[in-house]
Amino acid sequence: MRPFLSHPFDDDKLKEECGVFGVIGVTDAANFVALGMHALQHRGQEAGGIVAYDPETGFNNARRFGYVRDNFTKADVMATLPGSLAIGHVRYSTAGSKGATAIRDVQPFFGEFSMGGCAVAHNGNLTNATQLRKELIERGSIFQSSSDSECIIHLMARSIQKNIPERMKDALRAVEGAFSVIAMTRTKLIGVRDPLGVRPLVLGKVGDDGYALSSETCGLDIIGAEFVREIEPGEMVVISKGKVESSRPFGSAKSRFCIFEHVYFSRPDSILGGRSVYETRRQIGVELAKESPVEADLVCPVPDSGTPAAIGYSQQSGIPYAMGIIRNQYMGRTFIEPTEQIRNMGVRLKLNVNRALIRGKRVILVDDSVVRGTTSRKIKDMILDAGAAEVHFRIASPPTAWPCFYGVDTPEREKLLAATMSEDEMRDWIGVDSLKFISLDGLYRAAGEAKGRDKTCPQYCDACFSGEYPVAPSDQIAKGFAMKAAE
Amino acid sequence: MRPFLSHPFDDDKLKEECGVFGVIGVTDAANFVALGMHALQHRGQEAGGIVAYDPETGFNNARRFGYVRDNFTKADVMATLPGSLAIGHVRYSTAGSKGATAIRDVQPFFGEFSMGGCAVAHNGNLTNATQLRKELIERGSIFQSSSDSECIIHLMARSIQKNIPERMKDALRAVEGAFSVIAMTRTKLIGVRDPLGVRPLVLGKVGDDGYALSSETCGLDIIGAEFVREIEPGEMVVISKGKVESSRPFGSAKSRFCIFEHVYFSRPDSILGGRSVYETRRQIGVELAKESPVEADLVCPVPDSGTPAAIGYSQQSGIPYAMGIIRNQYMGRTFIEPTEQIRNMGVRLKLNVNRALIRGKRVILVDDSVVRGTTSRKIKDMILDAGAAEVHFRIASPPTAWPCFYGVDTPEREKLLAATMSEDEMRDWIGVDSLKFISLDGLYRAAGEAKGRDKTCPQYCDACFSGEYPVAPSDQIAKGFAMKAAE
Amino acid sequence: MRPFLSHPFDDDKLKEECGVFGVIGVTDAANFVALGMHALQHRGQEAGGIVAYDPETGFNNARRFGYVRDNFTKADVMATLPGSLAIGHVRYSTAGSKGATAIRDVQPFFGEFSMGGCAVAHNGNLTNATQLRKELIERGSIFQSSSDSECIIHLMARSIQKNIPERMKDALRAVEGAFSVIAMTRTKLIGVRDPLGVRPLVLGKVGDDGYALSSETCGLDIIGAEFVREIEPGEMVVISKGKVESSRPFGSAKSRFCIFEHVYFSRPDSILGGRSVYETRRQIGVELAKESPVEADLVCPVPDSGTPAAIGYSQQSGIPYAMGIIRNQYMGRTFIEPTEQIRNMGVRLKLNVNRALIRGKRVILVDDSVVRGTTSRKIKDMILDAGAAEVHFRIASPPTAWPCFYGVDTPEREKLLAATMSEDEMRDWIGVDSLKFISLDGLYRAAGEAKGRDKTCPQYCDACFSGEYPVAPSDQIAKGFAMKAAE
Amino acid sequence: MRPFLSHPFDDDKLKEECGVFGVIGVTDAANFVALGMHALQHRGQEAGGIVAYDPETGFNNARRFGYVRDNFTKADVMATLPGSLAIGHVRYSTAGSKGATAIRDVQPFFGEFSMGGCAVAHNGNLTNATQLRKELIERGSIFQSSSDSECIIHLMARSIQKNIPERMKDALRAVEGAFSVIAMTRTKLIGVRDPLGVRPLVLGKVGDDGYALSSETCGLDIIGAEFVREIEPGEMVVISKGKVESSRPFGSAKSRFCIFEHVYFSRPDSILGGRSVYETRRQIGVELAKESPVEADLVCPVPDSGTPAAIGYSQQSGIPYAMGIIRNQYMGRTFIEPTEQIRNMGVRLKLNVNRALIRGKRVILVDDSVVRGTTSRKIKDMILDAGAAEVHFRIASPPTAWPCFYGVDTPEREKLLAATMSEDEMRDWIGVDSLKFISLDGLYRAAGEAKGRDKTCPQYCDACFSGEYPVAPSDQIAKGFAMKAAE
Repeated sequence: MRPFLSHPFDDDKLKEECGVFGVIGVTDAANFVALGMHALQHRGQEAGGIVAYDPETGFNNARRFGYVRDNFTKADVMATLPGSLAIGHVRYSTAGSKGATAIRDVQPFFGEFSMGGCAVAHNGNLTNATQLRKELIERGSIFQSSSDSECIIHLMARSIQKNIPERMKDALRAVEGAFSVIAMTRTKLIGVRDPLGVRPLVLGKVGDDGYALSSETCGLDIIGAEFVREIEPGEMVVISKGKVESSRPFGSAKSRFCIFEHVYFSRPDSILGGRSVYETRRQIGVELAKESPVEADLVCPVPDSGTPAAIGYSQQSGIPYAMGIIRNQYMGRTFIEPTEQIRNMGVRLKLNVNRALIRGKRVILVDDSVVRGTTSRKIKDMILDAGAAEVHFRIASPPTAWPCFYGVDTPEREKLLAATMSEDEMRDWIGVDSLKFISLDGLYRAAGEAKGRDKTCPQYCDACFSGEYPVAPSDQIAKGFAMKAAE
Repeated sequence: MRPFLSHPFDDDKLKEECGVFGVIGVTDAANFVALGMHALQHRGQEAGGIVAYDPETGFNNARRFGYVRDNFTKADVMATLPGSLAIGHVRYSTAGSKGATAIRDVQPFFGEFSMGGCAVAHNGNLTNATQLRKELIERGSIFQSSSDSECIIHLMARSIQKNIPERMKDALRAVEGAFSVIAMTRTKLIGVRDPLGVRPLVLGKVGDDGYALSSETCGLDIIGAEFVREIEPGEMVVISKGKVESSRPFGSAKSRFCIFEHVYFSRPDSILGGRSVYETRRQIGVELAKESPVEADLVCPVPDSGTPAAIGYSQQSGIPYAMGIIRNQYMGRTFIEPTEQIRNMGVRLKLNVNRALIRGKRVILVDDSVVRGTTSRKIKDMILDAGAAEVHFRIASPPTAWPCFYGVDTPEREKLLAATMSEDEMRDWIGVDSLKFISLDGLYRAAGEAKGRDKTCPQYCDACFSGEYPVAPSDQIAKGFAMKAAE
Repeated sequence: MRPFLSHPFDDDKLKEECGVFGVIGVTDAANFVALGMHALQHRGQEAGGIVAYDPETGFNNARRFGYVRDNFTKADVMATLPGSLAIGHVRYSTAGSKGATAIRDVQPFFGEFSMGGCAVAHNGNLTNATQLRKELIERGSIFQSSSDSECIIHLMARSIQKNIPERMKDALRAVEGAFSVIAMTRTKLIGVRDPLGVRPLVLGKVGDDGYALSSETCGLDIIGAEFVREIEPGEMVVISKGKVESSRPFGSAKSRFCIFEHVYFSRPDSILGGRSVYETRRQIGVELAKESPVEADLVCPVPDSGTPAAIGYSQQSGIPYAMGIIRNQYMGRTFIEPTEQIRNMGVRLKLNVNRALIRGKRVILVDDSVVRGTTSRKIKDMILDAGAAEVHFRIASPPTAWPCFYGVDTPEREKLLAATMSEDEMRDWIGVDSLKFISLDGLYRAAGEAKGRDKTCPQYCDACFSGEYPVAPSDQIAKGFAMKAAE
Repeated sequence: MRPFLSHPFDDDKLKEECGVFGVIGVTDAANFVALGMHALQHRGQEAGGIVAYDPETGFNNARRFGYVRDNFTKADVMATLPGSLAIGHVRYSTAGSKGATAIRDVQPFFGEFSMGGCAVAHNGNLTNATQLRKELIERGSIFQSSSDSECIIHLMARSIQKNIPERMKDALRAVEGAFSVIAMTRTKLIGVRDPLGVRPLVLGKVGDDGYALSSETCGLDIIGAEFVREIEPGEMVVISKGKVESSRPFGSAKSRFCIFEHVYFSRPDSILGGRSVYETRRQIGVELAKESPVEADLVCPVPDSGTPAAIGYSQQSGIPYAMGIIRNQYMGRTFIEPTEQIRNMGVRLKLNVNRALIRGKRVILVDDSVVRGTTSRKIKDMILDAGAAEVHFRIASPPTAWPCFYGVDTPEREKLLAATMSEDEMRDWIGVDSLKFISLDGLYRAAGEAKGRDKTCPQYCDACFSGEYPVAPSDQIAKGFAMKAAE
């Protein structure tokens, strides 16, 4: 009776590593932060933390493993987080961290400086953190976590600036990579996005005097905040006493927002760069149907992330949309393997085929991406076991052939199916009648770029598809990572 | 910071009270039962219990509040449940039970008889349990729970029959109401359905010698069992050593299966009476579009239960299907109310409108049922707030005007919106541009009865819509419940 | 790293199996019961339960494993137990019960009868419970526990008497063995002692109108209750509305109170039969010093139970009293065995020798009893390792050669050292310079019987020493237990 | 139903704040450390932590609130602490720390330096920590706790020395106050005592190659280690590969060991400075009987700490020793107050008078110390309620008139009874027939200084009695603490 070590299905997805949320100028701010984190839960399910400030009791924090709904909904926990200013972070903890120590890795991080305390929450990944950490340790900093993000607070602690926003500028000028950072002092809520704006961050208005910062707009919706605008790439906002001050400490660069946020990471009800995520995904299905049509009886999504693209594919192709695979909505993280007999059932705990519907049909399955391909094979098996006549996979993203170093958990490059196989080889390995990915240009068109991808200066970061990294991943290169050869 | 006492959204749904699952003839039977219960979790989310029998350690049981995935996936719990024969039960605990004592109400119930132990799990509701309990107490039985189902095991304990299957027949001849019962002795797995077959129960084959009994076929699918057949109304099966013996202890009556299992309770991937639940629901949408067409821009389901009917409505009407409302998949049971400001956000924790999609559109919302109507009002508010031009509700069941006494948790009659208002009054109270329910005949047609409902002898139990109760609810009548006057 | 399965030291003691406590006529009665149970914790450390009655919420109960201080001190638990009438029970769970099911065995037991509910808590052991249980099951009773005590509530459920005190008389006339029972209805607190009065039970007055029943007087002291009197052997008291009604339903017999309560079970600050337990134990030491003197430098108790007798021995002999062995007051139940190296350290976790004191000295160790003798050997080893010149054991009870069947957990007869060895053989097996037990007459003298034991009609139950059982243990005899041959 | 906020009885004792233990060169070192911490539990009951090093998994740690026996006995916890080198710390958390954050204050503290990791556990108190912390923060150190001890690891992090023992010397030269420190690197176990040797630290040998460091010798006894010697005041030992290297980095000063360790803090079976703690305490009783005799019937200890002195007093005076007060050995930390009726029972939860023994007697009560005096009053009340004829208090320490700043939790000076009252005033306030403290010279004689206290150069630190602080408490003086005026 060996338990599964992890969720059998999610193993085969790229994982966003974080979501951040902060609010100022409202009573019981931590409750708002908990709601915002709940709306951002899809960006990090392993753990969450909140720091709140109250003039009477000072900075308080709570960090927990598990879902927001199971931790930050308890009156006894929330009662420890009084005050009108709070920030929070949800986290996907990477494979390396181990049980007892990993709570140290849960953000926000906190530092007491001579001019007062400061808490910092970071979404993204610093590509020169290994080197920074080494240098900071040499000079006497004591790290409490294994997180790259902790460098920011130590850099701030050593800054000679006299106020915290200036110390944060000092610190962020020293780091490389992707960051959307929310921070707080005793009186200020701070938000910053890296010069390329790889990760999202939006500003909202709450009530009369309050403001909120959130990774996505769905975090604003849940607390009834009004969407104001996106924080711009390279912008810092400092919010205090109902005022928002903006500055641009890092000069200016052309935005390279992560296109995978549109494909999979963000919630379909969020709005990114002025575009509905749902509509972009539906449009991907439309493009896919144009690029890769096939005769079939049904268009079925692989639930839930393939649903909008499947709707688009059905609408464009005229082939009926159907729920051929049903998702168990009570699925948790682990399950006991009963016996050898059903050792490999994995996917069945989460998904079940609608047998009566599928039998004898030619089925188009629409999924968001193929990473290792292992899940695609299992789903194909389920569909064929249920008696499907043909199985055609249509994928709502281009082949994922390169790892992300900007805040997404990806396998090593050699484990990415598309890094080692052609599209036809993948089709044969998965064992389906056809397999088609959307083209990079098709994806850009669906995302609103009518002319497709600008090859000389791409509108998005698409390194996971193209291998073109907008910021050199220096720590990785030091460890031997081979960049794509120039063409 | 007052916590919600219960799930804000599910309050306004009818609730199936139980699911049952049993298996015999497999190694580590309790693991199979846990999987089956997981697949049946939608039938009861409050608590679950498993009894297993092992020749060495005897009968063992574990009962827990919460989801199967959180309790019966732990190696230390499952290690206490060895053996090749086990049964389980998932439960929705009714409002009356209180904290500390309610674990006593979690099934299976167990009795040690002179010929050995017996465990019993019951889906349904006994309509004469109050009177039976009173009589049993007079004669010296000590009840351990507040459950009607416990009567069955006490009636068995007092039977003069010499074997347990005969004792069960004795007991079940004394009860009235709806029951699908699974029981086990040291060597036998037993399944019984009441004469009208109100609740479902199916038989499956596992491996070479094993058998499983499950409320729905989705419970067989998850363990890879082959569907054999439904247990028939009024049938008892006794399974032992790879053989299934069938008998009909209660004479024969015409089946009156619960039609609401098709509308809402059962999972869309289950097959009831030979029909795909998904297909029946999609067909309801088709019938609704025929009966109650309206000009509009989008057909949107109220997730997740309205989805198949919305697809059917879209396909019949030609109006595009769209995900206008997004469900937060991390929703749990309770959440802290932050402040007065957002006190009434309730639904927003679970649902968010896809604002960019809805703005300016005429929207058809398809939902499975209207109970109190409170949720319908909140959803209408959300849709209008997001800028919809018109809102039209289409409901995939007839007006719910009567309580169910056969194993479903329904509000008192006066709280059912349809018990006190006409369709037009409901439309105005909810505040939408139009509101239409499927007709009773339309529902029967969608469920495969081409000629609609047979008024003299209905093919289903539809008491919640029609007020025609196939078994007189004698305990309720004793408490003053007024049956529908004869027409 | 294998954990010890049980407390290494207490394994070698006889164990009292229960303590009972009840109170009526005070606000928040359950709080008083928790305090009383805390004072009686030495009578049962494994688990405890409380039932309280409140007119508004009815009977409520809480049952927990572990110490009273860890469970019944929490505001959330105690808030579930309102009312002015409550009873409680502390329990030592015997080896047979297993994890998941054993909470069922925690008393008080409860039954709902036609005239209302009744809760029962039992200290002692019924010697015909096996037969009673068999007969009750034949007639349809369903047992919820493996406890002999549950027979009482089932016998009451089947009585044809119209009120609960009369039903209790019916039930207790059918049982054999030792019992001090506390019970409660909605309005009455009931106390009963078996005809021989084997286990203690005392009555106290609380405030103006309240009464308490407790196994020992120390339970009265802790709540500030005034000691009224002992419940007499064979007496039943029914307390209601400030009045105590007494009756004698079982005829009259000569008292045979358990003499081991004086030796070890009861707390030294309790008063039994008008005598201070502490003073009886000190007097045992005085008698021992008279019967078995020896030249030595120090008299040391084996803590904590040997302390009063050691004080008496020192005072009679003139040899200085000293704390030669120090007890770790933070000892819990289990500890990890570090490695083979220190596998057998067991006793050292609980005790440590005062090395500087012991070195080169002739030491008299006073202990309360020898059961298996294993601990005596380990203590001897510790003392010799510390450099003692001589070790003399003096035991404050006669050799324990027979098991108790009246509510004490004793090993099987063949595991009792004194059942298979003479005093000299025991001395050699333990490995000490001398070993002496107090004589049976000496023990009776210390307990206040100036002429010693009345052989024709002993004043106490001393079956564990003499093999003379005042009530034939019929279940045990049926299982093959060989009584002592008549002389 | 208001719970007590803290232990009603221990409030009125001085509290040692820590115990430290470390071991090197044994398999599963963390298990040995857990045992050592268990033996040192009396030095800190609130929390404990262990750090272990294993070449494969690196440094691992576990920190928990509560007793060692409840946390570090679980196989799943101990399995996370592999390796042959480990250190641990038990802690009494001072009043200021609050719930959620206080786990940060649990030692050992850990820092990753450029030459590898280092863990540090500290017993004592640094008297210049406030100033050091301020300076370190100015320079960019981020503190994780509110503990003075964390300064040590930050000072080490900033040292320019190239190896950890040298960095520790740097750090400890910068601190003032009392410290016994145990530290570990990947290969070394380090022990240091401050120049005055205020707190104890001993060295033991385990098996062939292993060594242990412990606050007291009772920590060596429990693991079967052989006592080697005390670490000397001002000494540092570095243990690696079976070798112990000693150095004296702080010059040399005359020892000023804490005399209160003899009176109360240390366990009676420990050996301090070559003297048995038990024997010193017994001798205090002898001196007390000489200095302050009184006619009486019984000498009773206030359990448990007054016991050795009571034995000595009885032996010197010839007045019989008796257990007049019985301690409830199951006492925990908190209990619900039942009602107003018994609101002030406090002490009764822990202690009960042996009424039959005390009635009509003249009783001498021997206690270790008087702090606030509140408990002394309650005990006097209990004894008089039980009918004692006279009550005489004899105290085994001089009047406690000054706070300790070297690692003991003492009330503010104005709350110390002896700071504001003469001996006669204290007697009247407590309400006893006589009250006598041992003289400072008498205490020194009992501790082995035949000529009593050397006034010009006292052999011990006795600041709590004399107000003569061997190290100026600079942080306290900065906060306004008034030192004793020179005489």
